[in-house]
Amino acid sequence: MDMIRAAVVGASGYSGEELVRLLLGHHQVELAAATSRQYSGQTVAQVFPRFGGCEGAQRLRFCEPNPELIARQAQVAFLALPHGVAAELAVPLLELGCRVIDLSADFRLRSAAVYREYYGHEHPAPELLARAVYGLPEWYGEAIGRASLVAAPGCYPTSILLPLIPLLRSGLIKPEGIIADSLSGVSGAGRKAELDYLFVECNESLRPYGLPKHRHLSEIEQELSLAAGAPVVIQFTPHLVPVSRGILTTLYAAPGRRWDGEAGMGRFGEEVAACYQAAYGGWAGIRLLSGKALPDTKNVVGTNSVEIGWRLDPRTGRLLVMSAIDNLAKGAGGQAIQCANLMFGLEANAGLPL
Amino acid sequence: MDMIRAAVVGASGYSGEELVRLLLGHHQVELAAATSRQYSGQTVAQVFPRFGGCEGAQRLRFCEPNPELIARQAQVAFLALPHGVAAELAVPLLELGCRVIDLSADFRLRSAAVYREYYGHEHPAPELLARAVYGLPEWYGEAIGRASLVAAPGCYPTSILLPLIPLLRSGLIKPEGIIADSLSGVSGAGRKAELDYLFVECNESLRPYGLPKHRHLSEIEQELSLAAGAPVVIQFTPHLVPVSRGILTTLYAAPGRRWDGEAGMGRFGEEVAACYQAAYGGWAGIRLLSGKALPDTKNVVGTNSVEIGWRLDPRTGRLLVMSAIDNLAKGAGGQAIQCANLMFGLEANAGLPL
Amino acid sequence: MDMIRAAVVGASGYSGEELVRLLLGHHQVELAAATSRQYSGQTVAQVFPRFGGCEGAQRLRFCEPNPELIARQAQVAFLALPHGVAAELAVPLLELGCRVIDLSADFRLRSAAVYREYYGHEHPAPELLARAVYGLPEWYGEAIGRASLVAAPGCYPTSILLPLIPLLRSGLIKPEGIIADSLSGVSGAGRKAELDYLFVECNESLRPYGLPKHRHLSEIEQELSLAAGAPVVIQFTPHLVPVSRGILTTLYAAPGRRWDGEAGMGRFGEEVAACYQAAYGGWAGIRLLSGKALPDTKNVVGTNSVEIGWRLDPRTGRLLVMSAIDNLAKGAGGQAIQCANLMFGLEANAGLPL
Amino acid sequence: MDMIRAAVVGASGYSGEELVRLLLGHHQVELAAATSRQYSGQTVAQVFPRFGGCEGAQRLRFCEPNPELIARQAQVAFLALPHGVAAELAVPLLELGCRVIDLSADFRLRSAAVYREYYGHEHPAPELLARAVYGLPEWYGEAIGRASLVAAPGCYPTSILLPLIPLLRSGLIKPEGIIADSLSGVSGAGRKAELDYLFVECNESLRPYGLPKHRHLSEIEQELSLAAGAPVVIQFTPHLVPVSRGILTTLYAAPGRRWDGEAGMGRFGEEVAACYQAAYGGWAGIRLLSGKALPDTKNVVGTNSVEIGWRLDPRTGRLLVMSAIDNLAKGAGGQAIQCANLMFGLEANAGLPL
Repeated sequence: MDMIRAAVVGASGYSGEELVRLLLGHHQVELAAATSRQYSGQTVAQVFPRFGGCEGAQRLRFCEPNPELIARQAQVAFLALPHGVAAELAVPLLELGCRVIDLSADFRLRSAAVYREYYGHEHPAPELLARAVYGLPEWYGEAIGRASLVAAPGCYPTSILLPLIPLLRSGLIKPEGIIADSLSGVSGAGRKAELDYLFVECNESLRPYGLPKHRHLSEIEQELSLAAGAPVVIQFTPHLVPVSRGILTTLYAAPGRRWDGEAGMGRFGEEVAACYQAAYGGWAGIRLLSGKALPDTKNVVGTNSVEIGWRLDPRTGRLLVMSAIDNLAKGAGGQAIQCANLMFGLEANAGLPL
Repeated sequence: MDMIRAAVVGASGYSGEELVRLLLGHHQVELAAATSRQYSGQTVAQVFPRFGGCEGAQRLRFCEPNPELIARQAQVAFLALPHGVAAELAVPLLELGCRVIDLSADFRLRSAAVYREYYGHEHPAPELLARAVYGLPEWYGEAIGRASLVAAPGCYPTSILLPLIPLLRSGLIKPEGIIADSLSGVSGAGRKAELDYLFVECNESLRPYGLPKHRHLSEIEQELSLAAGAPVVIQFTPHLVPVSRGILTTLYAAPGRRWDGEAGMGRFGEEVAACYQAAYGGWAGIRLLSGKALPDTKNVVGTNSVEIGWRLDPRTGRLLVMSAIDNLAKGAGGQAIQCANLMFGLEANAGLPL
Repeated sequence: MDMIRAAVVGASGYSGEELVRLLLGHHQVELAAATSRQYSGQTVAQVFPRFGGCEGAQRLRFCEPNPELIARQAQVAFLALPHGVAAELAVPLLELGCRVIDLSADFRLRSAAVYREYYGHEHPAPELLARAVYGLPEWYGEAIGRASLVAAPGCYPTSILLPLIPLLRSGLIKPEGIIADSLSGVSGAGRKAELDYLFVECNESLRPYGLPKHRHLSEIEQELSLAAGAPVVIQFTPHLVPVSRGILTTLYAAPGRRWDGEAGMGRFGEEVAACYQAAYGGWAGIRLLSGKALPDTKNVVGTNSVEIGWRLDPRTGRLLVMSAIDNLAKGAGGQAIQCANLMFGLEANAGLPL
Repeated sequence: MDMIRAAVVGASGYSGEELVRLLLGHHQVELAAATSRQYSGQTVAQVFPRFGGCEGAQRLRFCEPNPELIARQAQVAFLALPHGVAAELAVPLLELGCRVIDLSADFRLRSAAVYREYYGHEHPAPELLARAVYGLPEWYGEAIGRASLVAAPGCYPTSILLPLIPLLRSGLIKPEGIIADSLSGVSGAGRKAELDYLFVECNESLRPYGLPKHRHLSEIEQELSLAAGAPVVIQFTPHLVPVSRGILTTLYAAPGRRWDGEAGMGRFGEEVAACYQAAYGGWAGIRLLSGKALPDTKNVVGTNSVEIGWRLDPRTGRLLVMSAIDNLAKGAGGQAIQCANLMFGLEANAGLPL
């Protein structure tokens, strides 16, 4: 089979770099182009010495983000660009017949009004919103397979949606009162020269931020509402912690029904386990933890895997669910490549480390 | 005025070392004795080179934890020992007329039955429980001043109780449904040679642990129930994150009354601010954050200070309160020294870095 | 072609775990057995959740380190055991026809007397020393290909020998007065429950150790002497720094001949570049840095690559060479697999990330 | 006694912040003014929440760096400004009768030509060079006491000069062939919004930089030459490692005379010990390590202390000396305050943590 030709647009940020890393290791997708205004003309290996052992990185030179050029070289373009900018490039790329997987927020929301509310400006291409598919392969796999425009989910949303969607769809938890408390590594802030993300400012620091209305809430609540079949409003608290990669999310939810005594709790626990098994048992990248195991980001960093663990608390009657992902892999580049795999008829996890 | 003579018993763990650090810098308390079976005979400066610049550390030699010896040299003994062991030493020390500030869990609970439930063995000295005072200076200052036996609170409890007690006492939040989500640095696990706390196992790792019934819940709920005047059960999730020191706690609570619209929310916010101001406005070590500021452990590490910040979320109607402390200072040794200060008629924060 | 069947003996330490990681990703070598007294009976995925996404790790169970069992299942055994213990297992394995790649120091030295001097006990199998090949693929490739017993080099030695051997062989540097100053991540100390390697003891700490006669000197000087054709004695200073993985070595050497002025220095620099190019130009895993680039461990971590950079200092007349490797990959498991590749007729870097 | 009134000019960088931290804790020097263009009008506590527990920080507002204003409020000004800018402010301050302690490189060199060579521009106030005293209290204490203009040494120079000066002055080491290999925490790069110093770029990274002619060489060699009584040229290699604070320097030197056998080496070792004892025995802040102890930055971080340890290597005949300092304290702000102490008749370490 011919290799699928892919372009990474905006390859100099952390998500772009991760896409480059994963595509260089992919056996069925070829990194055919990488754009960066800043590094145009230099080889990928020059800009990212860590890829220097890879022949493709020695050969490929960053080019300008020109739509014609990209569409000529690639069947699919990954856009790792700021919101607003991404949509402006998506339009000509789609017209030129290049499929687009956008890692920005531009095509994640179904409503241009919600986009305006959360991102502070008019949507640059509202006519494309209906056409875009939310790129969560475990739940939109079929639609992704037919799509020309896919919006790769945000990192926090991925860590929150995967554990919650099956529970909400099955009614095992109430849609009200959900809390998501998340910890993120610093790469989540992007490769930006800002004082807040200097080593000295992040090292030995634990801090919440972006409270109480983080932008990711818009897509989280959109998707949870779809899963619940009713509007869902959640509490979401992101924290910045001194690791390079990884998101650990702890979710608090009220069970959909009361249980009585240990036996009742046991049965409810079995239903939760069965629900997750039904949803994700067939997904190699999702590890449903059992026994005493709890998620740990160091078990997923560098891979497209997700760890999900849960506990019922007999004292409070609550269900706690915890998830761990790599914010750059399953939370960005890896999930985007899963979408590309599905768009071109490959298995979702083809070529990805698990 | 004569210096108060203090002993640190079990000085080789992290809490013991922090007591040594803070006492060496205290202008009104003298480190008169330090015990350690392991290091007996060596000077404090030999065991902890970082204190080598301090004359006291060059002179003082670790001795065996002999109650007669301790009582002869010190007016007050800080016990930085495992639970169970601490109580056994407290008994003879008190009999010998030495006041005791215990940093273990042995005297934190009023009920020997709850102690057995959470710590898995009979209480070694239940007759002392009624005599012990919970060492939270902001709320038990007067009783601490008269006490001969003080139980210094746990690190997580300190980070949870300080933000919640004033809100519960004033009825500003409901006692039901409270969630405490905490992040702790690795020193919280103690200086123990265990694989789980090796650098390589903690670095680049984010993980929950001890779910769902951490031992600290016993004292947290005891004190919250006293504040609320009714039994309080909370959800508590500790996480281990790669910093040496620091606890960041995020608390989720339901306001005690509904507010309507922005104006109502504004008034409620003012009540919260006023409540905190009334409770802690006179405490130099408690920083009530305003404006955009949010707590950050790096602002309190090494000091006995506490940062408290809060947000009302108009979308969910919840009150979020966040606190940051140094788990070894305000969460252990520093708070214990505050208690000693009060027991000997000094100002609570005398001699402590803020 | 049939997969080569390999066993990892002592798979629960960091080197063993890295061998497992790399073998699970190898397309031509199968992880047929993994031994661990401690984890015997558990699957690899249970013990190392991070490999849980890999089918092989879900299936394979740790077994006891029984030579018959190992030899029945594997054509080649990687020994990730303490020195002394490794040799005792190598003897029966070789007798049973299983090839052995030992990651301990047991077969690195040609002289049992030097072994005794540096390791403090008699060599357990001196009769095997003559048969063992030092597993540095770039210099002993042919002998490794024919060997039944290979001694994988130490981590520090790898970072020192690769930059120095070509310079010494070509006479470009003097064999006298060489200094190697190395920084190592904490995984180099092994997965051992010791206070010194706790997170809190290593974080925010920079410290030399093991001075002045680190055990690795024995193999370093053996190999440098062979390269120089005369006895070489070097200065070697290891430091422990707070990263999980990686060694950065800075080498100081006197040029083999004097140069005059800038032109002379330029010519000497060209000779150094040509020497490295001749030695390593054909090795994909060795990146010879040019221009302003200097080695950085973060560019090699997780891979079997080596970065080598150098500078001539016109002020001192010295040549500085710096190298970066991943101590667990090229410094241990990865290099051992390179040797296995050569022993079974594969390309040296087959199946390894670069 | 009246408090000495001091100003910190350029208080928003890491050195400036450290000066503020140390002055707020000083019992005989008052922080009377702090300037920052960026934060002018805000209180010190607002800009640096960690100082919020200190009354002085709550009261003092940053002001513009106006010389008249500074000279009116302060008897001594600490300049924590970029080189070039510092000298321009020093001129009017001195004219206004304010003593100046400059933490930039502007007044460290005796020669304007060397300044031009290393800093790339003409010296802005060469007429002041003869008047400036190099602020190393252990060696220039008397001159500092009489000075109106002091140049606080650089961080690397401090870690290199303190161990080497006594050895060179006594002839115990040869002035030729000295190598200084240094590791620095990231705060050494300053609070600058540059990609290279982002958390993600520094975490899990070990890298040399600035080779082979770092600017600090100019002052290092100036002072070593004065100590040796002859021109000294050294090799200096700085490395960036992922800690916030701390410099660990390893020095390699040839003994000034040959020793024979163990007895000879023992005698030489005693001379080294005696030399250090004579030079630094009276300095509380300098810890001369003995026995098995080796320097560790975590023992000095936050303090003005220096750890110095040494080893004779019988195999190479070399003397290794290692030092550890806090780059912001003894390497910048703390040492500058030592100079101020001496200028105003206090003990060198008055008010400083050791």
